[in-house]
This record gives sequence, C-alpha cells and structure tokens, in this order.
Amino acid sequence: MEKLYVIKIGGNIIDDEQKLESFLKDFAALKGYKILVHGGGKLATKLAAQLGVEQQMIDGRRITDAETLKIVTMVYAGYINKNIVAQLQANHCNAIGLSGADGNSILAHKRQHPSIDYGFVGDVDAVNISLVHALLQQQVAIVAAPITHDQKGQLLNTNADTIAQEMARSMSSLYQVELIYSFEKSGVLLDANDDATVISKINPGYYSELKAKELIFAGMIPKLDNAFAALQKGVHKVIIGKAEQLTQLVAGEAGTAIQME
Amino acid sequence: MEKLYVIKIGGNIIDDEQKLESFLKDFAALKGYKILVHGGGKLATKLAAQLGVEQQMIDGRRITDAETLKIVTMVYAGYINKNIVAQLQANHCNAIGLSGADGNSILAHKRQHPSIDYGFVGDVDAVNISLVHALLQQQVAIVAAPITHDQKGQLLNTNADTIAQEMARSMSSLYQVELIYSFEKSGVLLDANDDATVISKINPGYYSELKAKELIFAGMIPKLDNAFAALQKGVHKVIIGKAEQLTQLVAGEAGTAIQME
Repeated sequence: MEKLYVIKIGGNIIDDEQKLESFLKDFAALKGYKILVHGGGKLATKLAAQLGVEQQMIDGRRITDAETLKIVTMVYAGYINKNIVAQLQANHCNAIGLSGADGNSILAHKRQHPSIDYGFVGDVDAVNISLVHALLQQQVAIVAAPITHDQKGQLLNTNADTIAQEMARSMSSLYQVELIYSFEKSGVLLDANDDATVISKINPGYYSELKAKELIFAGMIPKLDNAFAALQKGVHKVIIGKAEQLTQLVAGEAGTAIQME
Repeated sequence: MEKLYVIKIGGNIIDDEQKLESFLKDFAALKGYKILVHGGGKLATKLAAQLGVEQQMIDGRRITDAETLKIVTMVYAGYINKNIVAQLQANHCNAIGLSGADGNSILAHKRQHPSIDYGFVGDVDAVNISLVHALLQQQVAIVAAPITHDQKGQLLNTNADTIAQEMARSMSSLYQVELIYSFEKSGVLLDANDDATVISKINPGYYSELKAKELIFAGMIPKLDNAFAALQKGVHKVIIGKAEQLTQLVAGEAGTAIQME
C-alpha cells in the first residue's frame, strides 16, 4: 500500500501569516500523496463582529445559525481555502481545495441533539473515497475546508479534527495512512509545562501504563483516545506535534507517534 | 469528439434565488460533459458596503484593491460557488467547484495597463486542459468561480465571460464545445425591444449582411465579435439566450446559435 499523509492544521497557524507561509512551504515539499485539512482561525469571528452577527458558544462550540453559516462558508471554503491553494501552487505543489459538497467528497447530516440546537452543524456520514483517490492519483494534493453538505442542498459547518479523522479512516482502505495533528505543543508531554518532555512513541500498552501512573495530563486523554480509535479503524499511525516541525514529524524525528505496535 | 457544454450564467440569475434554483435543476438534468461558469451578482457589492469597503468603478469595471479581492474571494469562490455545488448535488449532479488556483485550472497575470491600475484583476494565460479533462471524465460537472491565480501565490479577480470563453476555447482541443452565454434577453434580436424577434442562427455571411443593413443593435456587436472569435479558435457553436430556457437553448429550440456554417 502507498503512503498517504492526512495533516490537520489548527487556527493558531491559520491566524499567523508567517507561520502559515512556512508551514505551506514544508507541506509543498513533502513527497507523496497528501491531504491538508484546515480549521478556521479567528477570521470568521472577526468578520461576524464586523457584520454585527452575534456568535453564540455552547461548551466551546459555535452555534451555527444561517448568518454564521454564510460567514464560515465565505471564510473557510472561500478566503482561507483558496489562499492556501494559491500559496501551494506558488510552491510548485499542485493542490485542489474542496468543501464536502465538492465532488460529494464529505457527506454529513445536520446534528441532532436532544436539548441543544447547534444550528447548521454537520456530523460526517461518509467520505467519497473514489473521488479523493482519483484526485490524489492525478498528483494533486487535497486541501479540505471544514464545510460539508447533506446532499439536500444544505451546507454544514463541521469540526476540522473530525474531518481529518474521517478522511484518514476512510482512505485507509486504499492507502497506508499517517494522520498528523499539528497543535501548539511539541507532542504528548510527560510534563505539560515542559516542551522537552515529549514522549516519542505511545502504543496501547504504554498508554495504559501512563494512565495508570497518572503520568499523562488530563487534557491529552480525549486526543489520545481519538487517536487509538483511528488506529482501530485502520489508520496506520497518528502523529501529534508542532506545525512548525512538519518535516520532522513526518520523518519521525519530532512529535509523538501513536501506533498499535 | 464528445460534446462539452460551457455555460455562463450572469449575476441576474445568481441574485434571484428562485431563478437560480430552477436553472440549476435544468443544468443538473443536462446529459453529458458540462462546465458552469458563474459571475458574481450583487452580493459582493452588498458585503463591501456592509464592511465599509468603498468600491471604485472605472468604465463599468470594478477596481480590485486588497480588501475587495478578499471580499470577492469569499463571495464568489466561497459562498456562491459552494452553494451552487451543494444545490447541484441535491439534484443528483455530481459537481466540483473550482477557482483558478484549484488544480492550477486557470492561470492568469495581474492586468497591466498604461494609465489605469485595476488592482488585483487577472487576465487569463492558460487553462489546465488535462486537469479539467480528468475531472470531466470522472463524470463530474465543473463549477468555475471568476477568481484566478498567478502561480506566485496571488489570487486575481477575473471576468466570468472571459473565463467561459477561455475554457471553451482551450477544451476545444479535446471536445466539440458549445459555449452558452445566458443573459436577460431571449437571444440576438432584430428589434432590441421585442423579444419575439430572436434570430435563430447567425453565420459569418449573415452577420456581415445584418451589420451592413444596420439591422443589428450596437450593444450586440462586441458580443457577436467575441462569439465569432471563439469559433475561429475552435469552439463549435456559441449560443446566446435566456438562462430560464437552458434546456431549449441546448436543444436548439431557443436563443441564437452562432456558427461558422
């Protein structure tokens, strides 16, 4: 099986022009099949404020009313996605930007919740494996925006971490997938306040041990649970680390690799 | 050679929710290879006003400063493009939305003018024929937004009529292309005020005759000159007519067909 990298970059990189530029240079230089999933950053919040569209958050999640959906569609699938693609082209990396509606690449449904109305938020149902495969085989990198659709004409705001995970999981039927989550820290740390204490590799046995000894800080547990869930669904390796170190993350020289064996 | 339709819809359709919905139903039902090129409509102007970004027009053309480019990228490549794609998916037409940066589909350069600075406006250099062909062969309709790039990381605002013409011309090496321009009127009219006087077919001989007898109204001449230029560059047929009559335009039952013979 050929290798495929599914790489998620968070808002902190999107919001920093220089960091983003440097990250995209590294991404462009990466050999092989690759998918970049980007979050939103602060631009949508800023635009909403400028337009006087009030933002409602519940448990850290944005409630997506019709006006907010319009804003995130413009910002995520328009401004951010197209600027990333244009910069990749400048770095001689042919790339194509997709929302989930494009090529029916990510099908979702509007979130149903017994008590909270999240608005136009989508939970992923399926990735169009054959379309994604066909594009990758054209030597085109895919840049996925966190917007999906329900195949009934409705666009939906969708969590970028989830999109990365669903992409990785689904493409595992055709590729050996490495899922890379970039965030602010250098990886999974033994001491949350010391970036030098990165754990280079975690397998299920070691994970149990770390949890039993309470050597892992609480905020990291859901991320690691998600990583192991991805591995159980066929993803070959999950890597967590700093976006600024993409090249080293991929080479296994930085970050934390989460693997079954 | 297989047939390919390149269909341009103007702002008057984009701005009218019901007309757009009906048009997209017709487009979705169209058999065969197809590309839809959409203009911008009034949404960008409205958003610019809301954000207090002053719009400067010279000879009916929008000067695209950095803030305006951001707005048109959000509106054209984000909001309008993704909503069109989502609606086509709802009508069981698999479609993919592209800016010129996506897949390097349309390469352009920033317009150089001896006296006017148009800002971030692009003039088209090349269409990526092989990428467009590969997508079409996946049975995917292409929805092109009027945003291009210069392969140096710069997005550029580009006239949608030009994009339609360049797409049609370039794809003529692989397909028998019919280029359809939809506008407010039913076609080329003998009497500009009477929609019933549509000329069903114009070839070069008849065009000379119409011009010599001054039977054609002045505003139509640049459109027809452009149409004949497209034919000379390999486009098989140019059709001008009402978007509401797309099915009939394609079937040759409405509008004006402009052909060499």
